[in-house]
Amino acid sequence: MLAFAAGLAAGAAGGSAGAACVLSKKSAASKNAEKSPVRGQADLISGTEISKEVRKEVKEQVEQLQREHGCQPGLAVVIVGARDDSSRYVNMKKKAAAEVGFHSVDVALPETVTEAVLLAEVAKLNANPKVHGILVQLPLPKGIDEARVLREILVEKDVDGFSAANIGNLCLKDGSPPLAVPCTPAGCIELLQRSGVEVAGKDAVVIGRSNIVGMPVAALLQSMNATVTVCHSRTKDMKAKVQNADIVVAALGKAEFVRGDWLKPGCVVIDVGINTVPDASKKAGVRMVGDVCTEEAKAVASKITPVPGGVGPMTIAMLLKNTVNLARNSLVLPRVPLRKEANGVNH
Amino acid sequence: MLAFAAGLAAGAAGGSAGAACVLSKKSAASKNAEKSPVRGQADLISGTEISKEVRKEVKEQVEQLQREHGCQPGLAVVIVGARDDSSRYVNMKKKAAAEVGFHSVDVALPETVTEAVLLAEVAKLNANPKVHGILVQLPLPKGIDEARVLREILVEKDVDGFSAANIGNLCLKDGSPPLAVPCTPAGCIELLQRSGVEVAGKDAVVIGRSNIVGMPVAALLQSMNATVTVCHSRTKDMKAKVQNADIVVAALGKAEFVRGDWLKPGCVVIDVGINTVPDASKKAGVRMVGDVCTEEAKAVASKITPVPGGVGPMTIAMLLKNTVNLARNSLVLPRVPLRKEANGVNH
Repeated sequence: MLAFAAGLAAGAAGGSAGAACVLSKKSAASKNAEKSPVRGQADLISGTEISKEVRKEVKEQVEQLQREHGCQPGLAVVIVGARDDSSRYVNMKKKAAAEVGFHSVDVALPETVTEAVLLAEVAKLNANPKVHGILVQLPLPKGIDEARVLREILVEKDVDGFSAANIGNLCLKDGSPPLAVPCTPAGCIELLQRSGVEVAGKDAVVIGRSNIVGMPVAALLQSMNATVTVCHSRTKDMKAKVQNADIVVAALGKAEFVRGDWLKPGCVVIDVGINTVPDASKKAGVRMVGDVCTEEAKAVASKITPVPGGVGPMTIAMLLKNTVNLARNSLVLPRVPLRKEANGVNH
Repeated sequence: MLAFAAGLAAGAAGGSAGAACVLSKKSAASKNAEKSPVRGQADLISGTEISKEVRKEVKEQVEQLQREHGCQPGLAVVIVGARDDSSRYVNMKKKAAAEVGFHSVDVALPETVTEAVLLAEVAKLNANPKVHGILVQLPLPKGIDEARVLREILVEKDVDGFSAANIGNLCLKDGSPPLAVPCTPAGCIELLQRSGVEVAGKDAVVIGRSNIVGMPVAALLQSMNATVTVCHSRTKDMKAKVQNADIVVAALGKAEFVRGDWLKPGCVVIDVGINTVPDASKKAGVRMVGDVCTEEAKAVASKITPVPGGVGPMTIAMLLKNTVNLARNSLVLPRVPLRKEANGVNH
C-alpha cells in the first residue's frame, strides 16, 4: 500500500548491488563535468526534519479544529493478519496519530478473516462519524479481493487517496480537487517545495509507474508544470532519459539501481526506494538502501533525499495531513495547504 | 468537449503558419538522414477508412444486442444554444447513431436555459432506461457550471469517459476498467493498432495535456508499455524531445506547429489538431490543417494521419463504441474490444 512496505517487499533481495554501486566520486562527477560545473557534495533533503515541520503544523490544525469546531480528526487503521512489516508500520502510524491528537480506531482482524467480515468492518467505519479517514493496510491475505475492499471505503474517508475518483480528480485539470492525494507522492512534492526546488518548466523523470507512487507523482509534477517522462521496465535506454532530467524520482524498488553517471550534474534526486541489502558489518546483517546509489549520486546531484530519513518519514506525515483535510471536508471547510504560500499542488 | 470542436476553437487564428511551414522535402529528410535511412513518403493512416470499419463492427454488435438481448443501445445528446460548430458536430453524431441503429434522444435547449433546468434534463436522462450514454455538448453558455453539469451524469452513462471515476480507472493499473474511454484518445489508439504500429517499448511524446486528449492518450500509451513524455506550454526545448520520439501525438491546437525537422526518421505521427488557416485559393477562404506540417512530416515519418480524414472521423466512431459498451454494461455483459485480438488497451 505505501512505499515503505512496497519498498521492503520489492527490494528485499537487493543482493550485491549495494556493495558494487560506489564508483569513485571523482569518476562519476568528472564524466559529466563538461556539461556543468562539477558538484562537490549534494545537499541532503531531510525528510526527518521536514516531516517534523509537517506534523507540527498538523498538530496546530488539530487543536484549531477542536477549539473552533469541536471536531477531533479520527483515523481508523484496519490490519489483517500479523505480517511483521505491516505491524511495524501500523504501529508507527498509531504513534504518529496519537502525537498530533487524533482520535484513533484500530481494527485488528485474524489472517483467516472472510472478505464479508472485512467489508462489514469497513462499512461500520464508513458509518462512524468520529472516523474521518480509513486506512486498510495492504497487502491483504490471499483470497480477499483488495480492490473490492478498497472500493468499499467511502471516497470522503479514502485517506490514502487511492480511489478512482480521487485519482481521476488528481489527473484532471481545473476540476474538483481530490479529497486526498496519495501519501508518498504528496510527500515527494512536499520535500521538493520545502527545499526550494523550482519545478515549473523543469524536465522530470519518474522511474516506476505504480498506482501508489509513480503514476500519482507524475501527475503532481505535471500539474506543477514540469515536463514529465515516466520510465518503467519496458523503457529503452533509461540511462539516457535520466541523464536529461533536472528532477529524478526513483520509485521502482530495486536497490541502488540508479548510478551516479546516470545523473545530470546539479539535478535533484528524490529516492523513494527502501530496500535492504546484505551487510555483514551490521548487527542485523543487512542495511537499508534506496533505489539510487546515494554515495555516487551525492557527487553529481545538487540535492538528494537520503535513505533512510528521506521520503520514508514523509508518508506518515502526509497521512496525518490527509486525515485533517478529510475532517475539514466533513465540516465543509476548505482544505488547508500545509505550506503558508499558496501553490498549484494542493489542487 | 471533443477534439473536433476544441481544435476548431483553439486553432481558428492559425494565421500564416500554413503557408510558411513547407520546407523542401529533401531538406527535412536529409537533416536526419544520418540516423536512419531516408524515407520517401509516409504511409497515410486513414481515419476515414478505419472509422468505417469500426462503425461496421458497432453496427453488427448493435444487431447482436437486439437479437440476443432485446436491447437497443440509446444515445442522448444535449445541446444548449446554437453555436455553429456544436450544431454541425451534433448533427454528425446523430447521423452516425442512426446509421448503426441506435435509439436516439435529442435534447435541444435555448442559450438562456438555467443550470437548474439543464440539471433536471440530465437527471431525466439518467433515469431513462432506454438511454445508455449521455453526451452534453460543450462548451455550455457562460453562467452554467460545466463541471457541475458533467458530474450530474451517472458514471454508467458517461459516454465521453470524462468523469473522475472513469479517468481514475483509466490511470490505475490492474483495477476496474473504465466504463468508457474518452473518444478522441481512444480513436488515436485504434488508429495505431489497426495500422500495425507496435507501441510497447517505444518512446512516445504527447504534445498537449488537456483533459480530453493529451492526458488520457498519455495514460493509454503508458498502459500499452510505451515510455511517455508529455510536453506542454511550459516545456523547454520541445523540438529535441519530439526528435527522440518513435510515436508523436500532437494535440495542442496550433496550426502546423510541429515541423518536419522536429521528427525522427521513421516515426509515427498522430495529428489530433483541426485548425483553419487562411487560404485565398479555397472558396471558403480557409483550409483545414493539423498541428503538424503534414507535407514536411510525410517526408520523414513512416506513417502519419492526414488532416482532415485522420483522427477526426475516429472520435464519433469511438463514441458509438462507447455507447455499445455502456449498453452491454447495463446488461452486465463484458465489454467487447472492437478489435478481434485481445490487447491491453481495452482495459
